[in-house]
Amino acid sequence: MKFIYTNILGSFVLDSKLKIIDQIEFKDVQDFIKKEDTEKKLKKKHPDSELLPKDKFSAVLELFKDKKYFQKFFEINLSLTKQAIKSAVSKDNFITQTISNINELDKAVNLLSKRLREWYALYFPELEKRIFQQERFVEMVLEQDKKDLLKELEIEETMGQDLPKEDLDEIKELAKSIQELFSLRKKHEKYLQKVMEKYCPNLLELAGTTIGARLLELGHSLKHLALLPASTIQLLGAEKALFRHLKTGSRSPKYGVIFAHPLIQKVKRNEQGKAARALADKLSMCCRLDYFKGEFKAKDYRKELEKRFS
Amino acid sequence: MKFIYTNILGSFVLDSKLKIIDQIEFKDVQDFIKKEDTEKKLKKKHPDSELLPKDKFSAVLELFKDKKYFQKFFEINLSLTKQAIKSAVSKDNFITQTISNINELDKAVNLLSKRLREWYALYFPELEKRIFQQERFVEMVLEQDKKDLLKELEIEETMGQDLPKEDLDEIKELAKSIQELFSLRKKHEKYLQKVMEKYCPNLLELAGTTIGARLLELGHSLKHLALLPASTIQLLGAEKALFRHLKTGSRSPKYGVIFAHPLIQKVKRNEQGKAARALADKLSMCCRLDYFKGEFKAKDYRKELEKRFS
Repeated sequence: MKFIYTNILGSFVLDSKLKIIDQIEFKDVQDFIKKEDTEKKLKKKHPDSELLPKDKFSAVLELFKDKKYFQKFFEINLSLTKQAIKSAVSKDNFITQTISNINELDKAVNLLSKRLREWYALYFPELEKRIFQQERFVEMVLEQDKKDLLKELEIEETMGQDLPKEDLDEIKELAKSIQELFSLRKKHEKYLQKVMEKYCPNLLELAGTTIGARLLELGHSLKHLALLPASTIQLLGAEKALFRHLKTGSRSPKYGVIFAHPLIQKVKRNEQGKAARALADKLSMCCRLDYFKGEFKAKDYRKELEKRFS
Repeated sequence: MKFIYTNILGSFVLDSKLKIIDQIEFKDVQDFIKKEDTEKKLKKKHPDSELLPKDKFSAVLELFKDKKYFQKFFEINLSLTKQAIKSAVSKDNFITQTISNINELDKAVNLLSKRLREWYALYFPELEKRIFQQERFVEMVLEQDKKDLLKELEIEETMGQDLPKEDLDEIKELAKSIQELFSLRKKHEKYLQKVMEKYCPNLLELAGTTIGARLLELGHSLKHLALLPASTIQLLGAEKALFRHLKTGSRSPKYGVIFAHPLIQKVKRNEQGKAARALADKLSMCCRLDYFKGEFKAKDYRKELEKRFS
């Protein structure tokens, strides 16, 4: 009776007393990955051999406690680990980084826009009281001079001071930077859409870019999302309220980030919980379809949900 | 005996019974500002008149409680107020806004740089562990490809994944935006320098751009700084520690924002308090010189201080 045993160093044939009688050493990690081929070769050479049963493993491991193997163990293990790390980067990471950066851009834009409003008010204080949308405000600062603004806002005169060009230019430089951050945000959104179209078309279709990406961020990966129960997906992003509920017995939250979904926004207040549950159900299915490379069913799901809650 | 009395409506000549016997009405605010001219004209016409003594003021005010004056009072007052508001914007405001925005830019850059480091680590994780300076990091991300980086950091291979161009481009877009924020910060610094050279040359010379601007921000205006005692200037920016000291009796702070000044950084720890006091003294003098348009003495002050603490 002979045994075949394989580790990252190579495939070995052992006799019944567990002495090595034949072996094929691996040259690199690639050989180890295709270890079945090597094992087949040895099996041909030693037809009376079989794979080592589990109960004999610990005895065999003793054989490799020899110092002559150590260097090779170290090298191949290292290159295996490196390969594992390299391939650990998946589309999930890009989606997560992008959506996180969109959040960060929003924070930065808010910070700088507040400053722009205060600064520009030295020149034209009426604008900040009439234009609330940040992007529009920045646009008007950049594109219109005092006369245009007076006309557009239908006021006769401004309380602001006339500024020398160099002072006004400094304010406009800030506005330009903010505008560039807005345009980066838009680029990120397009990129996100493109990545998700390939990686998780079902999730994208049903959840939309922002909610879909936020779910991936909170669930860390598509794989993990696919393994989560629908009820968890329903509450992703509502962790604070959930733990408050568990601790203090306050009312349990009904939805996390999916609250912003148009489907839930549309239905009546007393149906929102039900709609959230149904949506989370379908979203969970979408994640599974996407992870296991299933069909594209999200459009049907969406229609079904829209019919039910309308 | 006749009296001359002026308010924003015009100049009036009153007889001894305080009846109006002559008057020149103002057409607009400009006339009111040059009221001495009008008063001189009336004085010529009525050589026996003098300015109304204070004890008769309340009696004269009764005369103007007539409704026919109200509309004009309202109009001229409004335009006076508008003018006052317009001219209330001074260089202080620009300096304060700029230095505040520099602080805000630092926050935004930090936020986005942290994200860039995390995101880029998917591609080349070794970089973020070796380059700590944010600006340099951004530069390397933009200007060098994998091969350049391996050579420059003297490493054989990276643990990062090779990325398709579209994924890498998205990261570089972020890096570009951060670089633009850095360049805006530099523009702000130059502008600050230019404004301060004209507005407060003494303060700029002795305190430098950043500390000088921070002092103006904390003191709200050059006028206010000029009125503050030197001991307050010494502690501007250390309010938290000061109030803790007053409340709990912990040790009193020795310096606020002036702590970053090279003079205080250079001296021994046990002399820093003394140096801070001397520096604050001179800074206070600088603010007064600048506010009252005095000579340029800051260079002498600086030399004096450098001699004393070296």
